[in-house]
Amino acid sequence: MKRWEMDAPGRERLRLKTVALPEPRPGEVRVKVAAVSLNFRDKGAIESGVGPSQPFPFTPASDMAGVVTDVGEGVTRFAVGDRVISTFNPGRLDGPGPGSARRPPYVMLGGSHPGVLAEYVAFPADWFVKAPATLDAAEASTLPCAGLTAWTALVEYGPVRPGQTVLVQGTGGVALFGLQLARAMGADVFVTSGSDDKLARAKALGATHVIHREREDWVEAVYRLTEDRGVDHILELVGGAHLGRSLEAVALHGRISVIGVFEGFTVTGSSAPLILKEPTVRGIHVGHRRSLEELVRGVDRLGLKPVIDRRYGLEELPAALEHLDRGAFGKIVVESH
Amino acid sequence: MKRWEMDAPGRERLRLKTVALPEPRPGEVRVKVAAVSLNFRDKGAIESGVGPSQPFPFTPASDMAGVVTDVGEGVTRFAVGDRVISTFNPGRLDGPGPGSARRPPYVMLGGSHPGVLAEYVAFPADWFVKAPATLDAAEASTLPCAGLTAWTALVEYGPVRPGQTVLVQGTGGVALFGLQLARAMGADVFVTSGSDDKLARAKALGATHVIHREREDWVEAVYRLTEDRGVDHILELVGGAHLGRSLEAVALHGRISVIGVFEGFTVTGSSAPLILKEPTVRGIHVGHRRSLEELVRGVDRLGLKPVIDRRYGLEELPAALEHLDRGAFGKIVVESH
Amino acid sequence: MKRWEMDAPGRERLRLKTVALPEPRPGEVRVKVAAVSLNFRDKGAIESGVGPSQPFPFTPASDMAGVVTDVGEGVTRFAVGDRVISTFNPGRLDGPGPGSARRPPYVMLGGSHPGVLAEYVAFPADWFVKAPATLDAAEASTLPCAGLTAWTALVEYGPVRPGQTVLVQGTGGVALFGLQLARAMGADVFVTSGSDDKLARAKALGATHVIHREREDWVEAVYRLTEDRGVDHILELVGGAHLGRSLEAVALHGRISVIGVFEGFTVTGSSAPLILKEPTVRGIHVGHRRSLEELVRGVDRLGLKPVIDRRYGLEELPAALEHLDRGAFGKIVVESH
Amino acid sequence: MKRWEMDAPGRERLRLKTVALPEPRPGEVRVKVAAVSLNFRDKGAIESGVGPSQPFPFTPASDMAGVVTDVGEGVTRFAVGDRVISTFNPGRLDGPGPGSARRPPYVMLGGSHPGVLAEYVAFPADWFVKAPATLDAAEASTLPCAGLTAWTALVEYGPVRPGQTVLVQGTGGVALFGLQLARAMGADVFVTSGSDDKLARAKALGATHVIHREREDWVEAVYRLTEDRGVDHILELVGGAHLGRSLEAVALHGRISVIGVFEGFTVTGSSAPLILKEPTVRGIHVGHRRSLEELVRGVDRLGLKPVIDRRYGLEELPAALEHLDRGAFGKIVVESH
Repeated sequence: MKRWEMDAPGRERLRLKTVALPEPRPGEVRVKVAAVSLNFRDKGAIESGVGPSQPFPFTPASDMAGVVTDVGEGVTRFAVGDRVISTFNPGRLDGPGPGSARRPPYVMLGGSHPGVLAEYVAFPADWFVKAPATLDAAEASTLPCAGLTAWTALVEYGPVRPGQTVLVQGTGGVALFGLQLARAMGADVFVTSGSDDKLARAKALGATHVIHREREDWVEAVYRLTEDRGVDHILELVGGAHLGRSLEAVALHGRISVIGVFEGFTVTGSSAPLILKEPTVRGIHVGHRRSLEELVRGVDRLGLKPVIDRRYGLEELPAALEHLDRGAFGKIVVESH
Repeated sequence: MKRWEMDAPGRERLRLKTVALPEPRPGEVRVKVAAVSLNFRDKGAIESGVGPSQPFPFTPASDMAGVVTDVGEGVTRFAVGDRVISTFNPGRLDGPGPGSARRPPYVMLGGSHPGVLAEYVAFPADWFVKAPATLDAAEASTLPCAGLTAWTALVEYGPVRPGQTVLVQGTGGVALFGLQLARAMGADVFVTSGSDDKLARAKALGATHVIHREREDWVEAVYRLTEDRGVDHILELVGGAHLGRSLEAVALHGRISVIGVFEGFTVTGSSAPLILKEPTVRGIHVGHRRSLEELVRGVDRLGLKPVIDRRYGLEELPAALEHLDRGAFGKIVVESH
Repeated sequence: MKRWEMDAPGRERLRLKTVALPEPRPGEVRVKVAAVSLNFRDKGAIESGVGPSQPFPFTPASDMAGVVTDVGEGVTRFAVGDRVISTFNPGRLDGPGPGSARRPPYVMLGGSHPGVLAEYVAFPADWFVKAPATLDAAEASTLPCAGLTAWTALVEYGPVRPGQTVLVQGTGGVALFGLQLARAMGADVFVTSGSDDKLARAKALGATHVIHREREDWVEAVYRLTEDRGVDHILELVGGAHLGRSLEAVALHGRISVIGVFEGFTVTGSSAPLILKEPTVRGIHVGHRRSLEELVRGVDRLGLKPVIDRRYGLEELPAALEHLDRGAFGKIVVESH
Repeated sequence: MKRWEMDAPGRERLRLKTVALPEPRPGEVRVKVAAVSLNFRDKGAIESGVGPSQPFPFTPASDMAGVVTDVGEGVTRFAVGDRVISTFNPGRLDGPGPGSARRPPYVMLGGSHPGVLAEYVAFPADWFVKAPATLDAAEASTLPCAGLTAWTALVEYGPVRPGQTVLVQGTGGVALFGLQLARAMGADVFVTSGSDDKLARAKALGATHVIHREREDWVEAVYRLTEDRGVDHILELVGGAHLGRSLEAVALHGRISVIGVFEGFTVTGSSAPLILKEPTVRGIHVGHRRSLEELVRGVDRLGLKPVIDRRYGLEELPAALEHLDRGAFGKIVVESH
């Protein structure tokens, strides 16, 4: 079978190797991978690694959909033929998962654990959940990280209420899932972007208001559009000092979910809105398996269709990564046939 | 009657004036003030003002206990002889109170509204709650700001559970209320301070662990004392970049209540623990009247005695403010007889 | 002006009187009533009274929409020309409202307080909230009781999540609001009824599944339709022993909101599902003013249109009550022009 | 080794057999049982069985403390020498555990699964948690059912706040854990009993108020002692029609945790207090493993000592069951040496 591997950090070290089919050990299943959804995090893992625990040879990527082809001894969770998707944080069944204050959990496929850019993987059955019935493999592969991150922020922690307002920054995978979920929960959704084209597509997807962040101060736009009330939920997808803008834009007792790190790994903001408006600021580290199962059920019931910007073949990974460099509208998926 | 007044910002503009007794209008009560508890915020309001809405002549201070001496037309909430305490944010009955994203609520006695350093005040009956039965006036006067801030963080928003850990920074009024409340809820409490004497007094008050923050890195001490788990609730009383240390010290899914601004009005911290540990970071702006009523009931049931460092007479305000400059162990109260 | 009044319990005592226009006292507003929505509770209040505190001469009904025509001294909450709706429980601003364990709150317009079946009313400004911009007066008048009850159950207490299931019993006002709100929050909705015609109309309104409760055991239907999972939220609109059926139908850790009393004033059910499935069973007593304000905002944002079965003129009250006797699909409204 | 076994329902079928030591399979540990805590449920399982899935030969009892003596292949959760306690619902790690609306979870040691009245047991490592460091084996054995039930009601679901009131019915194991936990959380605790002696002992354990339920209507006593406010949390340990009394006694927006079934398997109560006071009524089915781990930590931090009425030897099981018939003050434990 084919598998992408690298022997050291660096995009140029990626090779599509031919390797032996992995055998499922007791408690494991072998899954034929049909689609892999790429995340920005994958670029970092490929280019500079994710820390001392990253194994080499290294196969990148965490999010996949496929079909169970073999089950190891003692597996009752799945049967051959089941359509499944992976969990981003293997072993995080509920709550925060294992880890400590000193060593926060940083465990993921295509990082501390082997990745999924391969024709087959063999992993513990506990690392998978049933795929939604209403999505094809490419669509289903976008749930484990992008979909679940938005769900954790807006449903598991947030519960958005009808009539509330939600703001998402940009039009990447988490942002568009946030837009779709918040609309499905009866919220008004604001989308910011620097591209007229992307704003038009967000509007077509259901955004209530779109804000071109270069033509207008987005916080002032929020004040204008909400009669100064601010927005109830913000997906802070930019990060860094941008948190300070979100603190200005958030409504009294609102919620800011900190997800992105595009503007650096130090968040900053003014104390005054943080103290006087008493918003809840909470980081989001994807989510747990119970939530992913709820998201799968929710997607099926809602008929929610994840937005895929473009699909590539397994051998086209370099082109897919270049697309990721340029920025996508929603997700980029690598399919294997 | 006597009342402290100033005609412009600056401590030297404080004068103890003799003025006419205020008359309660419809809906108001006149209260004979027995004790006024001072907050750090009062220093700022005296020295540099609190913004364009501060009225002059200005009477400082927000937190008082006293006895109703007259009731205006239509008042049913209190009767003559009732012992009462003030609410810090007048008119914030429940929830966030009035305000907007653009103009967060910044409404308080001794700030946007007249203060209480006087022998009598006449305010709307809605601005008071019944005093606890088990406290004298000086003790009761410490509840509206310091006591309620700790309650909001640890009870209203936090609910601390038995067996959890709580860390308070320093030994000021909010910190000691936090210590006492958290102990009463079955939590282990860590106190940090730069003074051996204050740490010893905190220990005598029930602190489980005390950490001298100059002799030891307090975050490392937390790791050591919790076997790396971190602490579940932190009262961030320092503020500014110190939030970053609290993000390191907090447990997975823990809670950081941002209260203090001693290290500046810009909070900063690393994204990594914020995202990976998913703590809840929330500013605390004192609290609402419903919580203050619950705190009063709780104080009576628990037999909790607020810690007063020293009591001054009404005419001794300048000495009380100097004590505040030096830092107090718990609260400083000005009494009127 | 015209006002319906009765001098003793009994529908035959209702008279449409001509009386003097009420004058707003300090703190009150006078409102020209445009529409009054009827509830089943009104029938009881008319026919047999609501207890010792019911005043005579008595004007029934609690829920209205209208326009402020005069404001009393000191009123800042509204201005002449504002479109408003009433609050069902006057004075319940947030939380449970006043009352005790021995004497639970039982305070309402058209009950302990005067009702609204009149051309004008003069009440405290605090008893009104702004009407939604997107509804006409008849639609808006259905929010204070039926709309708010469904909102309290499914949003304020419940928060329904996308992909969950909600079951409403029958097709009265609360049931149809529950159906519309739950759909707007991304839930699947089950409706039970004994009428094919009403089930067809419920389906047209968006119900995911309809169950004819005489042709099929509805609990078995729920099991069948959910693959035995049960439903996550139930609006228990029947009451009495019917709670026992809802305990059978509810999912693990689900929620049953007890609202109706059609099968008597004693609820019963089996301990086994209550203990083993750990559902939350909670009575719903309409709701507080903060929730009503959120509902108004939600209705405007969602474009939700309350279902009115039929509109009557003010003088047609007897015919409207007879319609209520027969059972309505949604609400019955009395309009005044 | 010795093990109590029965080949059919009936107390007279209990035999203390000598059997082979159980061998731990992969994923299992063998534990030397030091103490077994008895529950009322055990009497039912012995006398009349617990349903079609009860295995024969049957070993009763679910709650034990002991020491790991051997670990099966692949076990990393425990090592030889670890002190452990059992989980009541094996496999319920978090949330409600497996089950459906039609078939609620009813899975327990000494019921659907083998019991623990033996010198050794061999079970999956997942079915145990670390024992508290501050308790001896007999004390530790009382946590899995009685301790955890009280914790789930008052901490996991309830969170009791300082200054609130809690009422427990009787002086059995759950009641006394409830008393101790609620006191540790700063609540006032009311205890009802029909025995002066037991009330005196409850008072000595910290009860704020004790009510002799035969000399006084306990609901009236609650009204008297709370100035009609009612109690905030009730552990409904009687069950059946007694729920109706708890609905009368509960405060507005209070909580009733339904646990006991002494007065039958059908709960009943009046709709009026359920609807007007909007209490939360929720059944409690012991709890999940994450809560048990929190309880263990809480017990260690609080220094809480479970109340054991009397300890018996393993061979004295018949006498211990007779003690259970008479009613115990706290728990009855069978020790093995």
